[in-house]
Amino acid sequence: MAHLHPRTELSRESIFAQMSRLAAEHGAINLGQGFPSNPPPPFLLEAARRAIGTVDQYTPPIGLPQLREAVAEDLGVSPQEVIITAGGTEALHALAEALYGPGDEVVLLEPYFDVYIPQARMAGAEPVMVPMRLTDRWEVDLSALEQAITPRTKALLLTNPYNPTGSVLSRTEAEQIVALARRHDLWIISDEVYDELYFAEPPISLRELAPERVFTVGSAGKRLEATGWRIGWILTPPGLAPQVAGMRQWSSFCSAAPLQAAVAEALPVARREGFYEALRQGYKARRDLLESGLKSLGLKTFSPAGTYFLTALLPGLEAEALVREAKVAAIPGSAFYIQNPAPKGLFRFAFCKTEAEIEQALERLEGYLKKVHS
Amino acid sequence: MAHLHPRTELSRESIFAQMSRLAAEHGAINLGQGFPSNPPPPFLLEAARRAIGTVDQYTPPIGLPQLREAVAEDLGVSPQEVIITAGGTEALHALAEALYGPGDEVVLLEPYFDVYIPQARMAGAEPVMVPMRLTDRWEVDLSALEQAITPRTKALLLTNPYNPTGSVLSRTEAEQIVALARRHDLWIISDEVYDELYFAEPPISLRELAPERVFTVGSAGKRLEATGWRIGWILTPPGLAPQVAGMRQWSSFCSAAPLQAAVAEALPVARREGFYEALRQGYKARRDLLESGLKSLGLKTFSPAGTYFLTALLPGLEAEALVREAKVAAIPGSAFYIQNPAPKGLFRFAFCKTEAEIEQALERLEGYLKKVHS
Ligand SMILES: Cc1ncc(COP(=O)(O)O)c(C=O)c1O
Ligand SMILES: Cc1ncc(COP(=O)(O)O)c(C=O)c1O
Repeated sequence: MAHLHPRTELSRESIFAQMSRLAAEHGAINLGQGFPSNPPPPFLLEAARRAIGTVDQYTPPIGLPQLREAVAEDLGVSPQEVIITAGGTEALHALAEALYGPGDEVVLLEPYFDVYIPQARMAGAEPVMVPMRLTDRWEVDLSALEQAITPRTKALLLTNPYNPTGSVLSRTEAEQIVALARRHDLWIISDEVYDELYFAEPPISLRELAPERVFTVGSAGKRLEATGWRIGWILTPPGLAPQVAGMRQWSSFCSAAPLQAAVAEALPVARREGFYEALRQGYKARRDLLESGLKSLGLKTFSPAGTYFLTALLPGLEAEALVREAKVAAIPGSAFYIQNPAPKGLFRFAFCKTEAEIEQALERLEGYLKKVHS
Repeated sequence: MAHLHPRTELSRESIFAQMSRLAAEHGAINLGQGFPSNPPPPFLLEAARRAIGTVDQYTPPIGLPQLREAVAEDLGVSPQEVIITAGGTEALHALAEALYGPGDEVVLLEPYFDVYIPQARMAGAEPVMVPMRLTDRWEVDLSALEQAITPRTKALLLTNPYNPTGSVLSRTEAEQIVALARRHDLWIISDEVYDELYFAEPPISLRELAPERVFTVGSAGKRLEATGWRIGWILTPPGLAPQVAGMRQWSSFCSAAPLQAAVAEALPVARREGFYEALRQGYKARRDLLESGLKSLGLKTFSPAGTYFLTALLPGLEAEALVREAKVAAIPGSAFYIQNPAPKGLFRFAFCKTEAEIEQALERLEGYLKKVHS
């Protein structure tokens, strides 16, 4: 019998789906997968209800004009440099197809966000992984990054703010990375889907430092707590948007038309009405709740400066045991490593959950750790 | 300066986008691109307004359970064999990635629907095109199809009902094609996005003849006149859905969640309330209007048994002259051919437009043809 192409091996059930399934089976609190417990804001929902029945047919693959303009306005770029995509995921897919192919390499940091590897491989390229240094905090090892570059390297792929580490590049780090990309004439893909989720200084957008070589990835789903709406974007260097948009035209043609129209209305409202400040405040409180709780249970935590993820060390425990027995789901560090070993006992906890869920998860962990240690 | 991957050459502005742009520039009636002038039905819109605010976060990549069930119920298959996608386009993309790669070939008919070629090439495979025979009707040349098969061939890709020809496979043709695929142990991708748009006998779903090797592609956008909503599906042979769903997970992760929920509600309503019968009646009237009009202007037409497209011969005229001077946009036949020559003077006209638009287009054509021939 005919068989599927071997690249379908890339698609076994992801650890995120697996942990969510186990969480449901065992009645566990799910601090694994990163989707918010909050609903999207009313101004977004109302805009969508109005758009349904008025913007229902194909939009241009590059995006509904008013959404390209709203994104451009929000981010201070030209609408000509904006492509609308089906979430950050499709933005990353289109960039992989647009930037590399067989024989090419792309350099990434480890831990990494899961879609990067199968997307690079579908485009035919080889991912080359450079581990982050983990001391009291997560740090980019710049010289290891430079050593990983070969004549085949086409691009660096970075995440800022960074899932799963929660780290945010300092200005110095950002400048050094950009200088390195310039020295080796590399593209940079800067995955900035958590651009509005930070707890100290606003993250630097790499594009500002090197507009000629940085592609920025954004996500309305992350910003507006509507992860299921699948609206994201790419900012391209000047002149390159039409060709890159062509690549997304062959994956989903265009993004959901009425939801594009709704996001176009909502972006200026979110900015004007302080929605992101409120979002950050809410997440900061929940970060602090989770972090102080985990610390008091004796875990070593790495305080996130952005995203809604927190990494911590819980040596000697297994994610499966945790979900089955403690009834708390978290993602094991190994899920974020493919070439280098994960730090021992590393877990990622999501805090885009309600305070009640976080508190209950902490109680369950406490009970479980007592049992295990007695 | 670093450069884009050469595969971005696949994405110059499509003839469909180009003709729509010219139509707008010249105030032409657009019988080019195939999006309906009708709005989606009220029961679909209302379901979506209810879903907004309740189903807003990530769904499983394979699809929202209730939509997988609604599609399965509608098409008489098991929900286990249904994958929800971002339109028929993403369904076709995921299948290309799942079924073929470098060194493989896929056999298609010409004229062909535009996305098939770049999708095959992105997967690394070579498309091999077999021209349809054009006599008084469009016919599959079965022996040419068989001759095109080599040891590298992995799949046949068919469109039924067929855009742009409007033809529908007879039972004999369908059985012969399936026998051929069995003989050579090939997969069949059967693009059936127009499955409810037929004007005589209902089209045969190839999957019924060979469930072990046929992947069916469907589109809620086409069925429910909401092309911008980007909800489609794949029916897979038993057991293969998880691996194929994995492929779409890396392109857009999941389809727009609230719109999935709305389509799940609407599919049984559409079936129960005779929506498709009404749709067919409406399109049949417009097909007849367009066809008799074009005939009376002296064109040779090929009466479509399905889809909302009609092919006709208008020798000696160019699509660009038509849009600029007659102010009617139609797609030139050459847009559907890449390896074989297009029949001389072939055009595709879309009749998913209002009767008023079709009538006005006919008047303009009449005036223009008089001028040209005088
Ligand atoms: C770092 C990172 N990039 C991209 C994405 C995908 O975003 P979207 O939901 O917009 O596709 C995620 C989602 O978790 C993410 O964490
Ligand atoms: C033959 C064919 N297949 C697939 C598609 C894409 O369908 P969707 O809009 O659901 O992506 C079209 C759209 O015109 C088509 O004509």
